[in-house]
Amino acid sequence: MSLFAGLSAFPLTPTDLKGRLKPDVLEKHLERIVSAKPASIGLLGSTGSYAYLTLEERRRTVRVAAQILRGRTPLIVGIGTLRTDQTVELGKDAANEGADGLLLAPVSYQKLTDDEVYRHFETVAAAVSLPVCIYNNPSTTNFTFGHALIERLSKLPNILAIKMPLPADGDFADELLAIRTVTADGFSVGYSGDWGAKDALLAGADSWFSVIAGLLPDAAVQLTRAAMKGDALEANRLHQALEPIWLLFKEFGSFRVMYAVASLLDNDGIEPPHPVQPLAQNATERVRTALEATLSKLQKA
Amino acid sequence: MSLFAGLSAFPLTPTDLKGRLKPDVLEKHLERIVSAKPASIGLLGSTGSYAYLTLEERRRTVRVAAQILRGRTPLIVGIGTLRTDQTVELGKDAANEGADGLLLAPVSYQKLTDDEVYRHFETVAAAVSLPVCIYNNPSTTNFTFGHALIERLSKLPNILAIKMPLPADGDFADELLAIRTVTADGFSVGYSGDWGAKDALLAGADSWFSVIAGLLPDAAVQLTRAAMKGDALEANRLHQALEPIWLLFKEFGSFRVMYAVASLLDNDGIEPPHPVQPLAQNATERVRTALEATLSKLQKA
Repeated sequence: MSLFAGLSAFPLTPTDLKGRLKPDVLEKHLERIVSAKPASIGLLGSTGSYAYLTLEERRRTVRVAAQILRGRTPLIVGIGTLRTDQTVELGKDAANEGADGLLLAPVSYQKLTDDEVYRHFETVAAAVSLPVCIYNNPSTTNFTFGHALIERLSKLPNILAIKMPLPADGDFADELLAIRTVTADGFSVGYSGDWGAKDALLAGADSWFSVIAGLLPDAAVQLTRAAMKGDALEANRLHQALEPIWLLFKEFGSFRVMYAVASLLDNDGIEPPHPVQPLAQNATERVRTALEATLSKLQKA
Repeated sequence: MSLFAGLSAFPLTPTDLKGRLKPDVLEKHLERIVSAKPASIGLLGSTGSYAYLTLEERRRTVRVAAQILRGRTPLIVGIGTLRTDQTVELGKDAANEGADGLLLAPVSYQKLTDDEVYRHFETVAAAVSLPVCIYNNPSTTNFTFGHALIERLSKLPNILAIKMPLPADGDFADELLAIRTVTADGFSVGYSGDWGAKDALLAGADSWFSVIAGLLPDAAVQLTRAAMKGDALEANRLHQALEPIWLLFKEFGSFRVMYAVASLLDNDGIEPPHPVQPLAQNATERVRTALEATLSKLQKA
């Protein structure tokens, strides 16, 4: 099976308030994920706060994670930065540490042109031989991939997948067809946006890049397996069990809610990188209620 | 006169392809600006590619600029980063190097709430006693300031100014009135977006945060003075002289065009940080034509 097929679980990167990795807490998160047997771990994705960490701390996080995982679960590493040279360096370092694949977001400050993004990906993919997944997330990167650019990029030999945001019109089948029409067989098309994953997978998407799987990997793995074999009933049951948390993702942003869930599960005192703030107490109480409802529904399986 | 009144000129930060400052080229740009006697220099703004430089290189740029300027022109330094702790450090460093003011952009990856941005500014303004200008530039920072947040922030003792993007409806008078209604006397309201500066200043804006002034400071200073004393005829003449360049700013982005202008003026071989690419040859030829037209019109004064 392709590296980019099935569930990719995105852990938080637990740090202190200065942005230094807490290896023991990362180990706890990774071991929970490994036990659930997802297709891959998406280290240093948006949920893993890659954009907020220094290059040194990102390198250290990859090194520590690789040592913890010891090859038990394939490791995909987010290497997006604002500079092409820095991204190339992070890609080489990730390869040296034993990563299995790369997630590449065209993080922008100045708005980038299609040609600039193409050259950026071309340069990175030429410098590092690992499989690359295009990270398409306009709300955080400020860049939107059109199908023509996806087509061009998919012709580069080691660009093998794309992570799409949920389609605005909810029509996964239509979008999957459009992307598959312009890409080769075997090019993997997956989605982030947890509340849309069930419909995406039932419509034939290849993968789910999951935020909640960073902390509740068993449920996410079960949902993925059910939906990928077309068991809509079971996929719906799991979707509904997780929905109370996903409603809060939409209300407060998944990043803040994940820190609240981590705190409720483990009480390790990790906080998002400021200026992003932990949820206020009343919102945290709502996360507690949602988490309890979800765990209770999951146990009734 | 307030630090944040009149023309603030925003130089490029000339670097090599690895993002290391070229001090000799910076000196050339700064001396040209100092000679024109603007109200201030806005070092490490968007035009100064602050977002693309390491923290060390940003510190070095401030140190080198302060040594070149020796107090001849007030120095405002952009200290925006994705992390509150890093921004506080850059603010302290800028103060130690002799900066006169700070420009603070709420750079975002995860979308920030109003409360998060308020706390970010509050923390920075409490840690560094220099005057702070709020940098409101939704297209690059991914955050939009509403008037309620501007009101709250303006009550912090050293937050003394805001740089606004051009109003979508072009109605400067209306927006200036709205902001002045919620801020104290003396709070400075200025604009970026060079092609709107003449109208902004004629409508009573306090300042112009100017991109073109980084390379053509004399014309920008003249335009500012004419518009601030209500000489619409002369302001219009200068606006029209500069307009060929501003049309290309709109078409290709001011950042890329500024590198082309710098190359035409000085031929120092500086390039924007990749993935941003230098303009292609046909676009560069159009910049050459526009620059020649502008310089010719300016000389006919």
